[in-house]
Amino acid sequence: MLEQLSAVLDARAGFIFACASLASIAVAAAVDKAVPSERVEEFKLANGLQVVVIPDHRASVVTQMVWYKVGAADEPPGTSGIAHFLEHLMFKGTDLIANGQFSKIIAKNGGEDNAFTNHDVTAYFQRVAKDRLPKVMEMEADRMVNLRLSVEDVETERKVILEERRSRVDNDPGSILQEQMMAALYRNHPYGVPIIGWEHEIRALDREDAFAFYRRFYAPENAILIVGGDVEPEEVKKLAEETFGKIPRHGSASVRARPEEPDHLAAVKVTLQDPRAGRTTVQRYFLAPSYTTAEPGEAEALDLLMRIAASGSVSRIYKRLVVEQKKAANAGGWYSDTGLDSGRLGFYAIASDGMSSEDLEKGIEEVIEELRTGGVTQEELDRARAAQLAEFVYATDSMPHLARHYGWRLATGMTVEDVEEWPERLKQVTVDDIRTAARKFLVDKNSVTGVLLVAPEHTSRMDGQPVQAPPGRKS
Amino acid sequence: MLEQLSAVLDARAGFIFACASLASIAVAAAVDKAVPSERVEEFKLANGLQVVVIPDHRASVVTQMVWYKVGAADEPPGTSGIAHFLEHLMFKGTDLIANGQFSKIIAKNGGEDNAFTNHDVTAYFQRVAKDRLPKVMEMEADRMVNLRLSVEDVETERKVILEERRSRVDNDPGSILQEQMMAALYRNHPYGVPIIGWEHEIRALDREDAFAFYRRFYAPENAILIVGGDVEPEEVKKLAEETFGKIPRHGSASVRARPEEPDHLAAVKVTLQDPRAGRTTVQRYFLAPSYTTAEPGEAEALDLLMRIAASGSVSRIYKRLVVEQKKAANAGGWYSDTGLDSGRLGFYAIASDGMSSEDLEKGIEEVIEELRTGGVTQEELDRARAAQLAEFVYATDSMPHLARHYGWRLATGMTVEDVEEWPERLKQVTVDDIRTAARKFLVDKNSVTGVLLVAPEHTSRMDGQPVQAPPGRKS
Repeated sequence: MLEQLSAVLDARAGFIFACASLASIAVAAAVDKAVPSERVEEFKLANGLQVVVIPDHRASVVTQMVWYKVGAADEPPGTSGIAHFLEHLMFKGTDLIANGQFSKIIAKNGGEDNAFTNHDVTAYFQRVAKDRLPKVMEMEADRMVNLRLSVEDVETERKVILEERRSRVDNDPGSILQEQMMAALYRNHPYGVPIIGWEHEIRALDREDAFAFYRRFYAPENAILIVGGDVEPEEVKKLAEETFGKIPRHGSASVRARPEEPDHLAAVKVTLQDPRAGRTTVQRYFLAPSYTTAEPGEAEALDLLMRIAASGSVSRIYKRLVVEQKKAANAGGWYSDTGLDSGRLGFYAIASDGMSSEDLEKGIEEVIEELRTGGVTQEELDRARAAQLAEFVYATDSMPHLARHYGWRLATGMTVEDVEEWPERLKQVTVDDIRTAARKFLVDKNSVTGVLLVAPEHTSRMDGQPVQAPPGRKS
Repeated sequence: MLEQLSAVLDARAGFIFACASLASIAVAAAVDKAVPSERVEEFKLANGLQVVVIPDHRASVVTQMVWYKVGAADEPPGTSGIAHFLEHLMFKGTDLIANGQFSKIIAKNGGEDNAFTNHDVTAYFQRVAKDRLPKVMEMEADRMVNLRLSVEDVETERKVILEERRSRVDNDPGSILQEQMMAALYRNHPYGVPIIGWEHEIRALDREDAFAFYRRFYAPENAILIVGGDVEPEEVKKLAEETFGKIPRHGSASVRARPEEPDHLAAVKVTLQDPRAGRTTVQRYFLAPSYTTAEPGEAEALDLLMRIAASGSVSRIYKRLVVEQKKAANAGGWYSDTGLDSGRLGFYAIASDGMSSEDLEKGIEEVIEELRTGGVTQEELDRARAAQLAEFVYATDSMPHLARHYGWRLATGMTVEDVEEWPERLKQVTVDDIRTAARKFLVDKNSVTGVLLVAPEHTSRMDGQPVQAPPGRKS
């Protein structure tokens, strides 16, 4: 509930990463010795498709991922949700694949598949036995250009998505608050618009919106193919040329032109009262750079800062609020580090019995203020760095995780070298770097505080009053 | 400082309305017997231009206004400020008018001229002696289609606009806070984007942006010509046909397609600390319908509600906070009622010596809570209604005010009949209507609270730290 809703993951065949949690991805950001550069090979097809191969012969399976460099932040105004909607529709049919059969064919071949959409990327992936790779690559290439959609397909899928929104967001006060906090944090940039879309805009999306988005952004030169597992680069190259290679270059550049965020001058607080809330909760978000936008070394320092400050039961915030002060039943935080245009730092605390939001706010502020003034100790840094590297090595021992790690970073503007050099850069972070980062980015005016309060079932005398139609919507 | 920055008025020749203040417009919303319908005539030219004539022969002057049904809320994303920028550029030149001579020619002819831009409309107006009307109509029609712009014109005007933004917004903590509150109040709808534009986007606007906006929206079928004063409808019709009438219909509809606002679920507070702030100030904005979007009778009830609650020294908020509690040096409020897609209610209080923002917040909330629970008295309603009508009759005795009153309302979707029937509708408002409106619209979750605090000159240890580049902006 308290992680960021940073991606809408659509589980279709049980092949689920914990990929709604950027915290786990932030952790999974080191390669150290586990992934020497000779393991990864990249090349481009003539039509511009970038291909990355990560051989790993321990088991006779392969992971295929196609990452499109497009996400919810690229949607035309008023059509929020179309990136995610289209991702759903990509599982309909083509001339070769009968309607609704894509995932069933993968499953019949013993494989698993899935897809997800976030603000910056849309990705499709399959894990299959090695000998099925030609089949799934053909299928994935086919739907890059040959999608067929009926008006009924769109209507049916709209219902699915509205139900998804209802269950994941509208029925969950924590998700509602996150949505409102993101809207408050990003006042001009489209990261403030929810990935799944505003409900009233989802209702208005149609087949033409989906095709317009598809035709504009789904193109070989706007995609990255990642194949990992029991393959060698030559095999992948041959297969890719026979499948994706036959798709003509799109031609018109699929430029991402997004409104930029103005300077932030005023701190914002968002308060949600909801009878369905379990406990009083306080969150704080701070604007911060991502790996893509940071100055050299800054994102690495933020990674370690947030690990020390807020990751797990040895973190500053947990020890202070949960163990010592007993104000919170749980407390933590994260660094959302993969955005094309921006990152975020987050802290949260869930109240213990009898504690108020003010108690939590004060506790969180004390932890943050200590980071600003005192920074962290060398011992904390050493321990955090060792844990970060070990955790990453462990996480990326899973091929899907590793492939996803490369895919996400390559699709948001980094290079294979950036990814591979990361452990070395992490090793260079000093306590001074971390204190500088804390002072630079844990700044009130760049923050949004979110307060979730448990409202009584009948929250006010307004119950039963007609609801006002929001601006621009004639009810 | 505390009125809404609801329009950017560009004073060029001393012809200044108080039109940055929607409060005065809200007041100026009744016609009673002063403007019987026989005084106003409207017709359309073949090319779609709507023409409204308001004869008034008391003095031998005329007011000409052209209202384009386009404003800042119609700007393509990332080009905020282009509506206002274009309004400035409209004073450059055409084939007939040498560069920069438009206002000078008006002045040489003894007239005054001006223009302004808000979220929904862009208007140009002149007041001249009656015999100069053919001249100014020719000039106004000419620049509807024949604008000439050099790259240097655009560069020069950009500097002017950046300085305008600096002096009106960036040097005024109250304006900064308003800008941030509007961004917080409108999370998806473009009313959250400042009319003058975000600074970084103004810097990127170019000649092509201006022409694209001009060609799309400046068209006879997207404009209203209002001529008031010492003229008769037949004269105006003849002149209009000889000038505006020669402009071909644009053809493609200039549809306003704006993202709509999602339901609001969480109250928001924006806190600005600024050493330049004079006194601690608290404001509250509430989403409300405008005259265009309201259910029948609702906007009229809100007009009277806000007059009773917050207008002048007999208002509830003034009596409570300034006179009785002495918490505030000043206090008041307004109803912004002319938006095409939304209106707003606003309250404000400026602290007396020694009073905190919490004192003010509590005081404002008490006033609002009493309106929700107890409504207003019949005596308050009678007095407010009489004052509202009297004030309007007085205000619209000025031809520019009256012409503007019609222009604003016609350009945001109302009809001449709507305008003329308003006094009757105001008379039908009951104390029940007002209490219902208070309960329906003075709702926390639809509100944004703005707090302006006086920061010490050196506000924090962060001074001198490098400023973080906002998301998406590589500094």
